[in-house]
Amino acid sequence: MKFLHTSDWHLGRQFHNVSLLDDQKAVLDQILSYIQSHPVDALVIAGDVYDRSVPPTAAIEVMNQFVNQVCGELKLPIILIPGNHDGAQRLGFGSGRMRESGLHILSSFDDIINPVVIESDIGPVAFYGMPYNDPEIVRHHFKQSVSTHDEAHQFLAQQIRDCFKPEHKNVLVSHCFVDGAIESESERPLSIGGSDRVSHEHFTEFDYVALGHLHQPQRKGEEYIRYSGSLMKYSFSEQHQKKGMTLVELDEKGFKSSTHIELTAPHEMRIIEGELQAIIDAAHTDPRQDDYLLVRLMDTHAILNPMEKLRAVYPNVLHLEKPGMLVGVEQEMAQAKLARSELDMFKDFFSEAQNSEISSEQEQALNQIIKQLSQQ
Amino acid sequence: MKFLHTSDWHLGRQFHNVSLLDDQKAVLDQILSYIQSHPVDALVIAGDVYDRSVPPTAAIEVMNQFVNQVCGELKLPIILIPGNHDGAQRLGFGSGRMRESGLHILSSFDDIINPVVIESDIGPVAFYGMPYNDPEIVRHHFKQSVSTHDEAHQFLAQQIRDCFKPEHKNVLVSHCFVDGAIESESERPLSIGGSDRVSHEHFTEFDYVALGHLHQPQRKGEEYIRYSGSLMKYSFSEQHQKKGMTLVELDEKGFKSSTHIELTAPHEMRIIEGELQAIIDAAHTDPRQDDYLLVRLMDTHAILNPMEKLRAVYPNVLHLEKPGMLVGVEQEMAQAKLARSELDMFKDFFSEAQNSEISSEQEQALNQIIKQLSQQ
Repeated sequence: MKFLHTSDWHLGRQFHNVSLLDDQKAVLDQILSYIQSHPVDALVIAGDVYDRSVPPTAAIEVMNQFVNQVCGELKLPIILIPGNHDGAQRLGFGSGRMRESGLHILSSFDDIINPVVIESDIGPVAFYGMPYNDPEIVRHHFKQSVSTHDEAHQFLAQQIRDCFKPEHKNVLVSHCFVDGAIESESERPLSIGGSDRVSHEHFTEFDYVALGHLHQPQRKGEEYIRYSGSLMKYSFSEQHQKKGMTLVELDEKGFKSSTHIELTAPHEMRIIEGELQAIIDAAHTDPRQDDYLLVRLMDTHAILNPMEKLRAVYPNVLHLEKPGMLVGVEQEMAQAKLARSELDMFKDFFSEAQNSEISSEQEQALNQIIKQLSQQ
Repeated sequence: MKFLHTSDWHLGRQFHNVSLLDDQKAVLDQILSYIQSHPVDALVIAGDVYDRSVPPTAAIEVMNQFVNQVCGELKLPIILIPGNHDGAQRLGFGSGRMRESGLHILSSFDDIINPVVIESDIGPVAFYGMPYNDPEIVRHHFKQSVSTHDEAHQFLAQQIRDCFKPEHKNVLVSHCFVDGAIESESERPLSIGGSDRVSHEHFTEFDYVALGHLHQPQRKGEEYIRYSGSLMKYSFSEQHQKKGMTLVELDEKGFKSSTHIELTAPHEMRIIEGELQAIIDAAHTDPRQDDYLLVRLMDTHAILNPMEKLRAVYPNVLHLEKPGMLVGVEQEMAQAKLARSELDMFKDFFSEAQNSEISSEQEQALNQIIKQLSQQ
């Protein structure tokens, strides 16, 4: 029994004011071709199908077309949960009507204990979905004293385990941050200060756990508790991540294997570092001039219109950094400024704004105010 | 063969800053009870299910629940088209997946010539849907030189007629403004200046035409070309309209009859006219004190806090008009003011703002400016 595990599509996402929808569509086409040539029993999407709760209509149309091709033409069931970027109620409209034709959107708490059961060569496999919810909503809905993501997932996992049937293999689909897993820069935190972490221990009784939220493909705790990672790169910091989906195989004993199936966006996201002229000279032999680029200029002198010069060879330079410009005088000044006190900085401001020096009385008063504020 | 024709639900609508969703839900419950006790073959919604293209999630949930009850529990097919208030692409997500379980959202041009065919005691009945679209979009999609709503509907109706099958009865579902039909105050014009009018002549070959857009139940042209009217009243000007849905019966020869099935919102919309004290005195014996009211005060003297006094007896007074206040001195003054020239009015303003009279030089300059402006 084989299924594909994917997550974090973020359809409709903008990146430095560029729409990624065409790239996303191209990657979805790769998923389609894979399915056409490699029969599987289901496709799982572990949350964040869209980038926001009210996605652009163009993103909805891309998703609709994909769903029609996969469930309609290829007759492959899709099982998906909303993530923290999706609007569960919006995404869930008509979900009860779509199940018969193979689209299973598990978006409500009622869906948690109503798994999608897929008949396969190893017998029935139950896919349980935990739609993403804040712990406060879990507390309110189930009248349970849970206050952290960890407690909420512990409680929900227990609800599901109580429904296990001996004849089933059990797959969990969840959108959460498993403690110790590796973040990327393109995820939106579920809550502030680390209280969004969930222990993988709640999930060990499943045969496979298809996770979403973190954008780097990885396992956590056990070989069968995995993040597939996002559909494509969504920040320059992910330039060296291998994006794709996870092909999962189960057998009579449960988890058998997982394989990373690579997916490649038409435009890669890359960081190029160097001096302007060297970058421009090298560009002519660069086979991937259309990639989305962050260019880090190491020149130490001022340059006129660097973006214009770069875009003549790399049309999709999306961001420019000039760390080299801070070397020398500017950097020394910046460091000197950082070392100055609040009083010194205010005196600078005062003399610029008033065109006269601060008086000793004023300075005394100011000192007192700063002292008061720093004691608060 | 019987079906229900309804339209213009506008779920999620606000009325004078009050949400109507609870009232709408109550009316939908009346539709449900009707269906439970009077078996029909289909429910048709001729557009404007929601009030806007991005409806509030609470409205989506009400609609979802209704759909689950009608298609899921009662196994009755729903056939609906988007209206000018709906977002066709948003509403249409998953429509291909929902058809198998009885929810037919005809939201794209491809759906126009793919009718929903319902098998019945009089044989197959084909329901054709024209999702609402501006003529520009019809022109662009079909590469046809149509520029008005009338031309667009003529063209689309022709496309449909070309698909007619001899063994079918044919029902059209459309959201448009049939020429000569009666408007209410709560519709949003499809276009400015009357160019939204469509001739009923394009529709005469159908056995029944289920129209949406106009909020007053009415027929136009033929007995079988009808507006069901809106789910409930959406403006005070509709206070005397009887809202409801239309029960349509077809037989072997085609259209047989239509019957208005009344639906009643928990809060009626009414206008009460009179002097404050008389209104308050009468309120005590008014059995419908919770209705949504527009109160038109006919008193001719100033009254302190009339809204507060009225809401003590009528909690849902939503709007107050005071035409009576203009009678007498104030009205005379207002009329006198209307009769004054621009120069006189500016002189009033000048003396109030400057606390001194205008000088003769200033008056001359002003006169010239007014003359120049009036010649432009």
